[in-house]
Amino acid sequence: MDKPIKPVSLDKAYRLLNHGPTVLVSARHDGVDDVMAAAWACALDFDPPKLTVVLDKITATRVLIERSGQFVIQVPTAAQLELTHQLGSRSLNDEADKLANSGVQLFTLGGQGLPFVEGCSAWLACRLIAEPHNQQVYDLFIGEVIGAWADSRVFRDGRWHFEDADPAWRSIHHVAGGHFYGIGEALGRK
Amino acid sequence: MDKPIKPVSLDKAYRLLNHGPTVLVSARHDGVDDVMAAAWACALDFDPPKLTVVLDKITATRVLIERSGQFVIQVPTAAQLELTHQLGSRSLNDEADKLANSGVQLFTLGGQGLPFVEGCSAWLACRLIAEPHNQQVYDLFIGEVIGAWADSRVFRDGRWHFEDADPAWRSIHHVAGGHFYGIGEALGRK
Repeated sequence: MDKPIKPVSLDKAYRLLNHGPTVLVSARHDGVDDVMAAAWACALDFDPPKLTVVLDKITATRVLIERSGQFVIQVPTAAQLELTHQLGSRSLNDEADKLANSGVQLFTLGGQGLPFVEGCSAWLACRLIAEPHNQQVYDLFIGEVIGAWADSRVFRDGRWHFEDADPAWRSIHHVAGGHFYGIGEALGRK
Repeated sequence: MDKPIKPVSLDKAYRLLNHGPTVLVSARHDGVDDVMAAAWACALDFDPPKLTVVLDKITATRVLIERSGQFVIQVPTAAQLELTHQLGSRSLNDEADKLANSGVQLFTLGGQGLPFVEGCSAWLACRLIAEPHNQQVYDLFIGEVIGAWADSRVFRDGRWHFEDADPAWRSIHHVAGGHFYGIGEALGRK
């Protein structure tokens, strides 16, 4: 059977983040995996594609990224709203079984030894571009996107198809305190 | 009559951007105003509130920001989709009457001598935090939010009310090539 997850060409990878979804950030180092939620992730460049993500010093995921030099940014769906909230509220620093307790399932893509979150709509594998001043002063991390994939049931032909897909595929956009909006209608120029 | 535009307390200013809308960036220097559209703007900190925005070297707005050290990030509405597209497609470098031709109306708020775009849902007045390396290498600009306001018909009590407001107030989220999504339904945890 044809697998629904397809590579996205790097020149179109920015489109996976351009509409501003809340994301999940995952990383692995020395046998330890972690996943956190982040609303402050943003495209930074087209070619080669780059992105920014803000990672607070209290997060365990940040330490894994600093040590391994790589991470994944993925776009969770409306069906994963509770999972996203759990991953954003619990910490591996307090709870060794955070991932199991949150119900997250990991898989691999692209052979980079990175942990990808199952059930998301899109994934961007990133290499950390070390910028110690930004990281220390602003908690701001820059990644170069080295691989991108999306689930073709909601992103194909270089664009999102939220309007044709099951509403469970919609991206989620956090405001504060567990208050999210789903992405809505396609709007074109009149 | 009570004016609909109200100040937003600085500790809640991040909520105006947290859901990832496409924004308009405006600036003024030496009697010249410009406004451009940007999808790559993102909250960076809570207190004091900061944000990032990516400004290509070809934009005239960037030069005004570098020279004046201040700018406004504002959240356009679905009713302003065509305006946003025009402001993102035309350049003051090619067209001295860009603002008039795009149909944008400017007004003032907060006495900082900054140009604010009429009809938006939220405005964040920013002081540039100069970071020449980020600006030169990544086109990445950091601003400290020194004043925030929102239209109380769609943002009040520290949160968005898209679900209760006219759909014309919805924020717009650009993907590529004039393909936007409006923000959608409020989603809560089950």
